[in-house]
Amino acid sequence: MHKKRFALIGCGFIGQVHAANLATHPGVELVMLADADSTRASTLAGQMHCRAGEVSAAINSDNVDAVLIASATPSHAELLEAAARAGKAVYCEKPIDLSLQTAMRVAENVLHLNTKITVGFNRRFDSSHQQLKRLLDQGIIGRPELIQMVCRSSELPPLSYLQTSGGQMRDQAIHFFDLLRWLTGDEVTSIAAMGAALAMPAISKFGDVDTSVLIMQMQQGGLAQLDNTRRTGYGYDERICVMGEKGLAESGPQSPPGLKLFQDKTIIKQGVYPDWFSRVQGTYYQHLDAFVRYLNDEEVADLPGLLDGVQAQAIAEAAVLSLSTKRSCPIDKVI
Amino acid sequence: MHKKRFALIGCGFIGQVHAANLATHPGVELVMLADADSTRASTLAGQMHCRAGEVSAAINSDNVDAVLIASATPSHAELLEAAARAGKAVYCEKPIDLSLQTAMRVAENVLHLNTKITVGFNRRFDSSHQQLKRLLDQGIIGRPELIQMVCRSSELPPLSYLQTSGGQMRDQAIHFFDLLRWLTGDEVTSIAAMGAALAMPAISKFGDVDTSVLIMQMQQGGLAQLDNTRRTGYGYDERICVMGEKGLAESGPQSPPGLKLFQDKTIIKQGVYPDWFSRVQGTYYQHLDAFVRYLNDEEVADLPGLLDGVQAQAIAEAAVLSLSTKRSCPIDKVI
Amino acid sequence: MHKKRFALIGCGFIGQVHAANLATHPGVELVMLADADSTRASTLAGQMHCRAGEVSAAINSDNVDAVLIASATPSHAELLEAAARAGKAVYCEKPIDLSLQTAMRVAENVLHLNTKITVGFNRRFDSSHQQLKRLLDQGIIGRPELIQMVCRSSELPPLSYLQTSGGQMRDQAIHFFDLLRWLTGDEVTSIAAMGAALAMPAISKFGDVDTSVLIMQMQQGGLAQLDNTRRTGYGYDERICVMGEKGLAESGPQSPPGLKLFQDKTIIKQGVYPDWFSRVQGTYYQHLDAFVRYLNDEEVADLPGLLDGVQAQAIAEAAVLSLSTKRSCPIDKVI
Amino acid sequence: MHKKRFALIGCGFIGQVHAANLATHPGVELVMLADADSTRASTLAGQMHCRAGEVSAAINSDNVDAVLIASATPSHAELLEAAARAGKAVYCEKPIDLSLQTAMRVAENVLHLNTKITVGFNRRFDSSHQQLKRLLDQGIIGRPELIQMVCRSSELPPLSYLQTSGGQMRDQAIHFFDLLRWLTGDEVTSIAAMGAALAMPAISKFGDVDTSVLIMQMQQGGLAQLDNTRRTGYGYDERICVMGEKGLAESGPQSPPGLKLFQDKTIIKQGVYPDWFSRVQGTYYQHLDAFVRYLNDEEVADLPGLLDGVQAQAIAEAAVLSLSTKRSCPIDKVI
Repeated sequence: MHKKRFALIGCGFIGQVHAANLATHPGVELVMLADADSTRASTLAGQMHCRAGEVSAAINSDNVDAVLIASATPSHAELLEAAARAGKAVYCEKPIDLSLQTAMRVAENVLHLNTKITVGFNRRFDSSHQQLKRLLDQGIIGRPELIQMVCRSSELPPLSYLQTSGGQMRDQAIHFFDLLRWLTGDEVTSIAAMGAALAMPAISKFGDVDTSVLIMQMQQGGLAQLDNTRRTGYGYDERICVMGEKGLAESGPQSPPGLKLFQDKTIIKQGVYPDWFSRVQGTYYQHLDAFVRYLNDEEVADLPGLLDGVQAQAIAEAAVLSLSTKRSCPIDKVI
Repeated sequence: MHKKRFALIGCGFIGQVHAANLATHPGVELVMLADADSTRASTLAGQMHCRAGEVSAAINSDNVDAVLIASATPSHAELLEAAARAGKAVYCEKPIDLSLQTAMRVAENVLHLNTKITVGFNRRFDSSHQQLKRLLDQGIIGRPELIQMVCRSSELPPLSYLQTSGGQMRDQAIHFFDLLRWLTGDEVTSIAAMGAALAMPAISKFGDVDTSVLIMQMQQGGLAQLDNTRRTGYGYDERICVMGEKGLAESGPQSPPGLKLFQDKTIIKQGVYPDWFSRVQGTYYQHLDAFVRYLNDEEVADLPGLLDGVQAQAIAEAAVLSLSTKRSCPIDKVI
Repeated sequence: MHKKRFALIGCGFIGQVHAANLATHPGVELVMLADADSTRASTLAGQMHCRAGEVSAAINSDNVDAVLIASATPSHAELLEAAARAGKAVYCEKPIDLSLQTAMRVAENVLHLNTKITVGFNRRFDSSHQQLKRLLDQGIIGRPELIQMVCRSSELPPLSYLQTSGGQMRDQAIHFFDLLRWLTGDEVTSIAAMGAALAMPAISKFGDVDTSVLIMQMQQGGLAQLDNTRRTGYGYDERICVMGEKGLAESGPQSPPGLKLFQDKTIIKQGVYPDWFSRVQGTYYQHLDAFVRYLNDEEVADLPGLLDGVQAQAIAEAAVLSLSTKRSCPIDKVI
Repeated sequence: MHKKRFALIGCGFIGQVHAANLATHPGVELVMLADADSTRASTLAGQMHCRAGEVSAAINSDNVDAVLIASATPSHAELLEAAARAGKAVYCEKPIDLSLQTAMRVAENVLHLNTKITVGFNRRFDSSHQQLKRLLDQGIIGRPELIQMVCRSSELPPLSYLQTSGGQMRDQAIHFFDLLRWLTGDEVTSIAAMGAALAMPAISKFGDVDTSVLIMQMQQGGLAQLDNTRRTGYGYDERICVMGEKGLAESGPQSPPGLKLFQDKTIIKQGVYPDWFSRVQGTYYQHLDAFVRYLNDEEVADLPGLLDGVQAQAIAEAAVLSLSTKRSCPIDKVI
């Protein structure tokens, strides 16, 4: 099998995660790194034994089969479109753009080009969410009727991050809008949200929340819930419970190996994941691997496509609207 | 200590539960049973070694200190008011009345009489919910920020029951509106609900749902969630998780003693509660016991009063409104 | 159904437990209490609304169908034999006698009388051990190959108790020798034991241990383990795991309802049983109920008989021998 | 830091595991592979991009700093001694030799050479056993009083493997003899064992067992238990519970991420480890890493040394003796 030649754009925290995976994957050759900050690109390129180049070179080089876009969010849309027009396959970090309108326009421009594109909803590749998807597909618990999702980050991000994140709906909840669509094979038709800035009241100045609860109506009749927090006092907590007619399946708050300590009439289970990254870390590689298999024309059922990116953003947009209007928002109102 | 003399009105399923508890409690003397169906009253009276009488006698007899009202819902309000006016202490099954207006009017008529009254929110006396209340009161996890409640009955009630139940909000969810107020010591200010008739589509004809998801805004800033189902494929499931600033406490899906069976790469925990009654059964006695202590002028912190009954009904009313208007409903809109 | 008339001999701690059960059971009439200390008998009789009498009257009265012997251990053998000779059914607390020889002699004297007798191995009636027995009988995990039993009391008994208890093997481990025989339907053929006085070194003066580990060979080829402690730092711990060819079933360390507390990267399960009595309390009633059904000529599979008492004691005796000889001891060496 | 140059001897199953780790470790250069079967060596060398050579070259080459011996057991002792005499550091798979006498002689010959040696007790590097060791060292549960260990392989190895394995004590239990010494910092003084060939009766012909239970006396007063099976019906099961004066700590039957499925009054936890290798796989790398840190003169507390290898074998030898003599065997009887 011919190795796929990747260029990576963006050498920040998540770019470095992708770089390590690209360097390790047996079906990938990491040929070039680029970053708006060329020093940052050179440093990482040195560690990865590949070369640093201009962003434009990364997109246009004949030596490149695929571009992985992990740069700052405002640059995603333009780079995605340019890379697709240059005939490259694209792995684009989420979101496509903070503006749903822009994301939709890019999708329109790009879809007819028939390039291979995936959007960074890596949590589809969490090993227990994958098991849940298989179990649902096999019909073991019947039609999904009530989906309960929990996404609770343990450590508050810095205010600077939150200021440019697009808000809790577009930045954090969006992963679960995608997971919900993927797991059920169904679409959200309406959403209602309530939120508050409890952990960091300062963010309410720019209209953001750090604690939120959401309910959703699905097209095939089911109902869903999601709650999000930006910090907990106990570690990272991510769960998806799907109740069907015939039972309930839970992809639970996985944890690394830990002891049980019995003391003083209690049993203490040690070892909850400290933060989101320690839980989801492995999914980036799995997502990359699925994308490479797709590039090699294998059938890959779970790969999030460009329209998945748009659709999840539309739900986030409706959630934002519901937060301010205090009424449930039909998704088709924002598309 | 002088035994308190009780009359029981209502000899149906829940009346029989109360009869057994009244007969067993060392501080109670069950002096009389009454029922609209006098044969049913006589039969139960025979088993309980007490006498059967007219409803009016139960309320007015000089031999009676307290009346336990477990008759059909439409009779609650009138009996409650009559018993209070007759100077009896009253334990009234929930709801006070299916109409919030009637419930509020009864409360107004009765409160100034200073009779001792409790409303049937027995789930406050679930032993693990009680532990949760203590833990919250001690401040161990700090201010409640996100409360997640699950109430899933395992077996569909018959259509005949559902037709007169007042609907899922007033009949099932109402217990959790009360638990939420009690646990947090806070008030719900706004609620949004979505629901569907998935298990028994026929009930949608009279506007009811059997599966619902709700989100609530609390006065002190916290947020809450609740989901309800009328049947599951796996047993009875009742959970309350409270996330505070410093941690999370879960009063979980308790189960009776059961085995763990390890087979074929799985661990099977046997013994989930088959239905709601097997889980909450003991709480009726605990509630009665608290009421008796109250009658003996002890301080009893957790006893649900008449206004608790009204308040929980108001939340249920707002939830019903939200289901139809598809917008969040402030509680003060229905009071 | 005619109520069975019981006399209770022994009004100490465990006698009071039995008294309460005898007073509550619908198929029982508690007619008389007796105790070497007649004041103690009178006091309890007052509470139970029955009369106090002489021990000899309890055994010989025509008004008595069955005698429950809960007196001090040294009196068990004589009372058991006398009651049986007087034609009474007998429920005798374990052990029959601290001397295996005496126990065997009593059994020989009594067995041909065909009286109905049960020995106090109440833990057979623990609800999860019962479930385990059913599961084994159904063959769900196949032939038992490796049985692991844990019996760890939480609070050290006083030295005075330990001095007359007969030692850890005859007093504590003996319940599990009986459970092992009952669950497997098999016999122990050989046992090896090691022990130490770690929690209360003083008991080594009279040859006792408070911490012990035992291994056993079963007649049909399986192997078993048992460990015992007289105190833990964490609560009461009782478990039985049976591994068969096709899987493993665990009757685990059951606990009363309790919260889960998530804090600081740990999950704290609250509510382990504080002591042995809070776990096994209910089994005394279940055992009594089975005995009453037996008196009414129902078939009762799990009732421990006189020979079960002898057999478990024989294993305990062999364990004591193994502790001192430091070699495994065949059971037929002590019988 | 200078990379340590390793030669690997033995290219069978476990040799291939080591080869992959040696090729990946950043502090290691895998310079040479050797195997009695030179074709097998060449094939693996091709995959690992290193060269194949003679066993003698692997031991004597100036290009080699350390030798990892993963060849057939009968060759371990000779290769270990030769490599140590040639001045190489050595990582030797367990056991040193099936004969304790030979193992002791090699140790005597080699120890004064002051070469750096580790023996393959990789399970010390299991992440939860490591946590248990830390917790014990911190004194959180006080002095170890009762240690319970379970080692149950899921799939029967082929008869051919069992015939040359040295038996369950020397091949399987030996890891736990080492873990026991390491965790407690204490020595076993006496052991008693019972065993049976239940899963594969054929092995009893050469005196082996596939199911065994063992009890041990520790020098500082504690007691220990171990059970071993060669097959289960439910997956791989490895647990270590240490009870101290102040509590109990359990390094439990870890499992990979899996779903919880609620169905039909049961909760099914999916995803027990299918076999021993999927559980312990990662420990080989951790052990190698600790060894490399040791080669770089870091202090590495947990590394099993040559005498650890001898000591664990001595316990295994005493267990074998106890199986046949049916009496407990002091360890100093076999050394």
